Amino acid sequence: ERFSIHNTHVFPFQIINNYLDGTQRGAVDSVSGMHFRGSKRKVDYVLAYHYRKRLAQHQQGTSPPEPMNRADSMAVFSNGETRKGHLELQPDSGQHIPQEPLGAQVIELGPLDALEEEKRLQREEYEHNLVAAGLEIEKDAENKSQGLSFVRIHAPWQVLSREAELHKIKMPTKKVSIFYLLSTRGILKKLNEIWCKLTEPLQPQVPQENTKMKSLSYPFSREKMYLKYFGEKIGLYFAWLGLYTEFLIPSSVVGIFVFLYGCITIESDIPSKEMCDQRNAFTMCPLCDKFCDYWNLSSACATARASHLFDNPATVFFSIFMALWATMFLEQWKRLQMRLSYFWDLTGLEEEEEHPRPEYETKLLQKKLKNKSTTTEDPNEVRCGLSFHLHFDIFCYIVIIFLSLIMLTFSAVFGVIVYRITTAAALSFSTNETTRSNIRVTVTATAVIINLIVILILDEIYGAVAKWLTEIEVPKTEKAFEERLILKAFLLKFVNSYAPIFYVAFFKGRFVGRPGHYVYVFDGYRMEECAPGGCLMELCIQLSIIMLGKQLIQNNLFEIGIPKLKKLFRKLKDGRTELKEMNTNQSKDPQQWDLDYSLEPFTGLTPEYMEMIIQFGFVTLFVASFPLAPLFALLNNIIEVRLDAKKFVTELRRPDTVRAKDIGIWYNILSGIGKLSVIINAFVIAVTSDFIPRLMYQYAYSQNGTMHGFVNHTLSYFNVSHLKAGTQPENSPFAQDILFCRFKDYREPPWSPNQYEFSKQYWAVLSARLAFVILFQNLVMFLSVLVDWMIPDIPKDISEQIKKEKSVLVDFFLKEEHEKLKLIESFITRIMPLNKHQCEADN
Amino acid sequence: ERFSIHNTHVFPFQIINNYLDGTQRGAVDSVSGMHFRGSKRKVDYVLAYHYRKRLAQHQQGTSPPEPMNRADSMAVFSNGETRKGHLELQPDSGQHIPQEPLGAQVIELGPLDALEEEKRLQREEYEHNLVAAGLEIEKDAENKSQGLSFVRIHAPWQVLSREAELHKIKMPTKKVSIFYLLSTRGILKKLNEIWCKLTEPLQPQVPQENTKMKSLSYPFSREKMYLKYFGEKIGLYFAWLGLYTEFLIPSSVVGIFVFLYGCITIESDIPSKEMCDQRNAFTMCPLCDKFCDYWNLSSACATARASHLFDNPATVFFSIFMALWATMFLEQWKRLQMRLSYFWDLTGLEEEEEHPRPEYETKLLQKKLKNKSTTTEDPNEVRCGLSFHLHFDIFCYIVIIFLSLIMLTFSAVFGVIVYRITTAAALSFSTNETTRSNIRVTVTATAVIINLIVILILDEIYGAVAKWLTEIEVPKTEKAFEERLILKAFLLKFVNSYAPIFYVAFFKGRFVGRPGHYVYVFDGYRMEECAPGGCLMELCIQLSIIMLGKQLIQNNLFEIGIPKLKKLFRKLKDGRTELKEMNTNQSKDPQQWDLDYSLEPFTGLTPEYMEMIIQFGFVTLFVASFPLAPLFALLNNIIEVRLDAKKFVTELRRPDTVRAKDIGIWYNILSGIGKLSVIINAFVIAVTSDFIPRLMYQYAYSQNGTMHGFVNHTLSYFNVSHLKAGTQPENSPFAQDILFCRFKDYREPPWSPNQYEFSKQYWAVLSARLAFVILFQNLVMFLSVLVDWMIPDIPKDISEQIKKEKSVLVDFFLKEEHEKLKLIESFITRIMPLNKHQCEADN
Repeated sequence: ERFSIHNTHVFPFQIINNYLDGTQRGAVDSVSGMHFRGSKRKVDYVLAYHYRKRLAQHQQGTSPPEPMNRADSMAVFSNGETRKGHLELQPDSGQHIPQEPLGAQVIELGPLDALEEEKRLQREEYEHNLVAAGLEIEKDAENKSQGLSFVRIHAPWQVLSREAELHKIKMPTKKVSIFYLLSTRGILKKLNEIWCKLTEPLQPQVPQENTKMKSLSYPFSREKMYLKYFGEKIGLYFAWLGLYTEFLIPSSVVGIFVFLYGCITIESDIPSKEMCDQRNAFTMCPLCDKFCDYWNLSSACATARASHLFDNPATVFFSIFMALWATMFLEQWKRLQMRLSYFWDLTGLEEEEEHPRPEYETKLLQKKLKNKSTTTEDPNEVRCGLSFHLHFDIFCYIVIIFLSLIMLTFSAVFGVIVYRITTAAALSFSTNETTRSNIRVTVTATAVIINLIVILILDEIYGAVAKWLTEIEVPKTEKAFEERLILKAFLLKFVNSYAPIFYVAFFKGRFVGRPGHYVYVFDGYRMEECAPGGCLMELCIQLSIIMLGKQLIQNNLFEIGIPKLKKLFRKLKDGRTELKEMNTNQSKDPQQWDLDYSLEPFTGLTPEYMEMIIQFGFVTLFVASFPLAPLFALLNNIIEVRLDAKKFVTELRRPDTVRAKDIGIWYNILSGIGKLSVIINAFVIAVTSDFIPRLMYQYAYSQNGTMHGFVNHTLSYFNVSHLKAGTQPENSPFAQDILFCRFKDYREPPWSPNQYEFSKQYWAVLSARLAFVILFQNLVMFLSVLVDWMIPDIPKDISEQIKKEKSVLVDFFLKEEHEKLKLIESFITRIMPLNKHQCEADN
Repeated sequence: ERFSIHNTHVFPFQIINNYLDGTQRGAVDSVSGMHFRGSKRKVDYVLAYHYRKRLAQHQQGTSPPEPMNRADSMAVFSNGETRKGHLELQPDSGQHIPQEPLGAQVIELGPLDALEEEKRLQREEYEHNLVAAGLEIEKDAENKSQGLSFVRIHAPWQVLSREAELHKIKMPTKKVSIFYLLSTRGILKKLNEIWCKLTEPLQPQVPQENTKMKSLSYPFSREKMYLKYFGEKIGLYFAWLGLYTEFLIPSSVVGIFVFLYGCITIESDIPSKEMCDQRNAFTMCPLCDKFCDYWNLSSACATARASHLFDNPATVFFSIFMALWATMFLEQWKRLQMRLSYFWDLTGLEEEEEHPRPEYETKLLQKKLKNKSTTTEDPNEVRCGLSFHLHFDIFCYIVIIFLSLIMLTFSAVFGVIVYRITTAAALSFSTNETTRSNIRVTVTATAVIINLIVILILDEIYGAVAKWLTEIEVPKTEKAFEERLILKAFLLKFVNSYAPIFYVAFFKGRFVGRPGHYVYVFDGYRMEECAPGGCLMELCIQLSIIMLGKQLIQNNLFEIGIPKLKKLFRKLKDGRTELKEMNTNQSKDPQQWDLDYSLEPFTGLTPEYMEMIIQFGFVTLFVASFPLAPLFALLNNIIEVRLDAKKFVTELRRPDTVRAKDIGIWYNILSGIGKLSVIINAFVIAVTSDFIPRLMYQYAYSQNGTMHGFVNHTLSYFNVSHLKAGTQPENSPFAQDILFCRFKDYREPPWSPNQYEFSKQYWAVLSARLAFVILFQNLVMFLSVLVDWMIPDIPKDISEQIKKEKSVLVDFFLKEEHEKLKLIESFITRIMPLNKHQCEADN
């Protein structure tokens, strides 16, 4: 086994392919520190490890051997001083030195020292391989008994160009007008020929055309600099974030207009006026058994008015708009991706065969060894076994854990429901008048905050569990690992973030039963109802608090605060262990790599993407209930993009550059959310909002075509004498005067032969709701397909550019060919007489 | 302008890239005829034209000048004797010789001769260009005053290899195990080097692996032979047809089972038993005003029983199955396409820049000339004008024509409806008892046949109109032309084929009104109703007759008969014109090209695809109503694949080979149909069939959970005294005994306060229907996405193969590189002393 450096995250490790004189990480400017000692060779990559010398054998028998993969056993990071080129160290075959037997042989040195010795051997072999691959290395003398040592690597020009050729990196070859000529595949001679023509230093790969095409690119153009610096994968993330943020601008504006429309029309909204009108005096049935009194609908006036802000016809238009917006965004992203991959010269990038992850090979090896020691099976079967037999067991295991985690989320949601019901009931016992009047506000607010905390905690747990599950799975390659991890983490976090919102949107208040026949959760506790203005208002509160809270806490606290804390903690720890040594040595000026080592290691883009994708969900999925969501997202992202950039530049070690052509599985997830949003918005408008009942009333039931009488129409009658014994209000002052109380539902009145059954209106409204869902879904889907079809995936200018380049290339090579033929001809004509001459001379 | 050969269908013209010694077209075997006279050079391509010598100046002043683009002015066809390679003649720049001025200059020669002279000049220029491009040509002496002349073209090896290189054709380079090594892009030297290593003759490109992978490929493996022969585009069509036919087998089997299930359960079906039971005696309201009598429901027993064959619960399962089937088919096709493009070495094929169509250039030129003569505008503006200004006018024009054509279809459908209504009314006047009892059968059968004839006629018209519209549009390239033509033709033909079926499925019988308040088309003519068994039976008849009739007539009559007739006609015509000349010349043995000239020219694959896609629509769109559709399609295709193959081999001139990586826009159309089928099937099951009402009755309304009483439940009551005056049955024998008649609808009974309004059941059933649509659509869509996601687009073996090839390639080139370096070194070491020696000798 090769060195398992830096927590499984090393093979294949890659050098950043850019060339930035003087643009160094952070504020450090000790240029001398960026070179090998006493030479002009630049430090391209730095490996770091903790060592422990055999000379100082403190026989610490009790401490257990450190696991090989611990983060501090060997850390890898790089600094900003590299050449253009894309280096990948090809792993030699047959490097699988099993770790157990070796450890067993030298056990008499003490477990720790044996391990140290083994590590040293592995390091030496690894360094030997590096040198064999043509790299030059420089090591510090290990002059302390234990401590941190750096191996600095310089990649000479020959190595870089060889690897560049193997990986088919495109480069500017000839300055023919604005065209780049593609370097031909893997012909060294050709490449070198072209190479020689290259006079100027290698330019940064993003040409200037890009800037003029993006006028609105305040976050984007800024990030391009770091892109030159961090590699395409991170560049794509910032490009994506930039486009997303840009797209949020129009949707925020439209969202604000929709909200303003609600504000303006609030005075002319007849249903909320009717509800607020004291003269109407709708006596409503009590909200809980025994202790709640009959109440007047006008007391819910405020929520009704607030509901109108979000529940108005403009919302329907807005959700159609947002569905198309999502499609447009994805289309534009495809185009931008194409454009970027053109300008970053990735168009010809093909998928490379990836090396298996070290963990996979270890597993395979262990399996093989185990089988060899027990039976003499067919080795092919063993290999097959890892990929199939093992996977099926693990698959079941993962599914079970997965389901139980989702159950955990649901039970958390249910727990909060129970909390709400019980607290509401408990508070209603209270004799304090202020408490009782604010029951709903208190309960809702506290419950949402509990929800938020649960979501944040579970989010962290789920992230860890997803990673653990994926590690159990032992995917073969790094890419497969990442994709599976993302899928798992996304599903878990999606369910976690949206479960309470789904509950409020589609389930809350739908299983209440009816007066005299309520549904009870426990004995005496009724299922919770929505506020009289509809559940939409509550959904809106839920959404805004969870969205804002999640963003504020996760962004500011987790993303900025925790790394800082970690850094501080690690510094303290390192400082303490090295303190005793420090005193003996003279304290030198810290080298660049010493400073870089103190930074936080880079752990991938997954959390950044995840956060944004969940936000994208908030913006699209429930936009019908909360038109201001895009605005909040926009504000968050403007901060986010700068925080992320700052973090990458100053807080993290420079990540290994990864070339990437697209954003991978995230695109599929985005397009999945886009599709889901259509059906969810359809249901929110049809089922959660009052849009359809209002339309139905206005055009089917109203006497004069206006909304007057709508509130009365939506309330059913209940004969109070039908209340079950023991559930009547106990201390009602006007219980004697009341014959009928009202409740919000379409049911037959008590005087009908089928009393309290669903009325004809119920079914008619239900039909209209469902018809709306079908209509909305298919219309929006059709429009999306149309948009998708109308916008070509490849921008026209880019495709034309590519075609032109190709034709220039063909011309160029034809000319080249002719010249070469001429050259050969002239050569032959010069050589032939020479040979003749020589032959004659010989004769 | 270059020669506008063979009705706009020539530039860029391409030589078929295969090499088949002895495998010649049809049964002709005069091998000597396949070579240039007295030489071994093979005839690779033949151009043919009609000439008219200047010597024989028949001054036919009255006949108008022949248009340049007429099919007989110059025809191009090829025969089977070509080498491997893919030749495209690069059009030289500056060939736009305007045709009007030239014609004007030589007008004194008479219009016809001037034109002839001009054509001759153009031909000479064209031939000159051919020779300049390195081709060798052979011409017959024009020894007749007018007649057919052939220009035979031989493409020498140098030209073929140069063009092959420019087009990046892959070829077997080295026989390393089973891997083909890709030839590097456009490096002649390299290519030739590899070329030299090639000892064996170029193999046909389909390797043997393909056959063993397809066990069920009875139509497919047979077609591969022609594929070697006709180029990838036609090969892909047959591969697609083969896969589609294979996929029809399981769906036919399932369809038969569904039908059999209907047959078996027919005896146990309670609703149809209830309907047939004479004792029930449901007195139904009359089917027409005045002349129709009350009737007993049991008289409709037969149709009710027949309906059950297609309208049973298994159909629901079958439509889900077919929706998934369609997804699977498309996925498998993507995989097969990938596999084929791998085995046919098309994986690296990139889109080439296409040459503009000659028509486009002519148009551009005309525009330029016109503008030059009138004003001195900016030339850039003119160029822009063609692509935008012209297009907008034409776009409006096309949209108007398009809409009017669709209106034409609708009016045809409406016409047939009117025919049905009036004929049914007319027949009901009849005193003949037999006639009256068979009204429905007679009317339905004749109407469907009229529909079929209308469809067939309009199909031909629409095909022509679509072509005409696309020509007006003047698309820039051949590919754009084809895509636009396909899209237009498909939309028109789709509407044409399905409009009557959509009418029966979703509209027939829904706007009838109710007794006492019928909807009238004209005075006295009521809207038509469905049969008592539901519209599904009628839909089924409509579908089967249109599908079968269209296939039989279009396949057998149009595809086979008409080409034969055309051939006969053309032969007769040619024979007559050449008769006078024939007598003077000795009749030689006809050469291969003389025989080939008599074949029908190839007009593209569009009609073949179109036919199959419309069939795919029949199989998927309405499969819920006609489970036997896949079976009929299968039977048709087994014949079709052979007929098509025969046609290509023996009836048509050999088409110009076109390389294609995929089936282009047809894939989009197929996937669109797949998506549409989900929603249409959902509606057919929910709305057209009785599935939902039955379910609702069984689980919501039935007293004992059985279907007993279902028929009674679906029939509403009508008080006969409420019939409007003058619409009562005139000659009813039992009018006096009847108080209530029944009709099929959910309406309130006469004794309800809201008499004849829709009842609560109506709305409940409607809700259930709509809920089913939502559920079905989203479930099937979800499953489709899942299937799409689970099946990778690229088969695993292929992607692994490609990866392996790539690594072998890299190794190979590295080795090559080393060898070359060694060679150069040794060369230098040999040359250097030589030079020294020579220098010394000189000195």
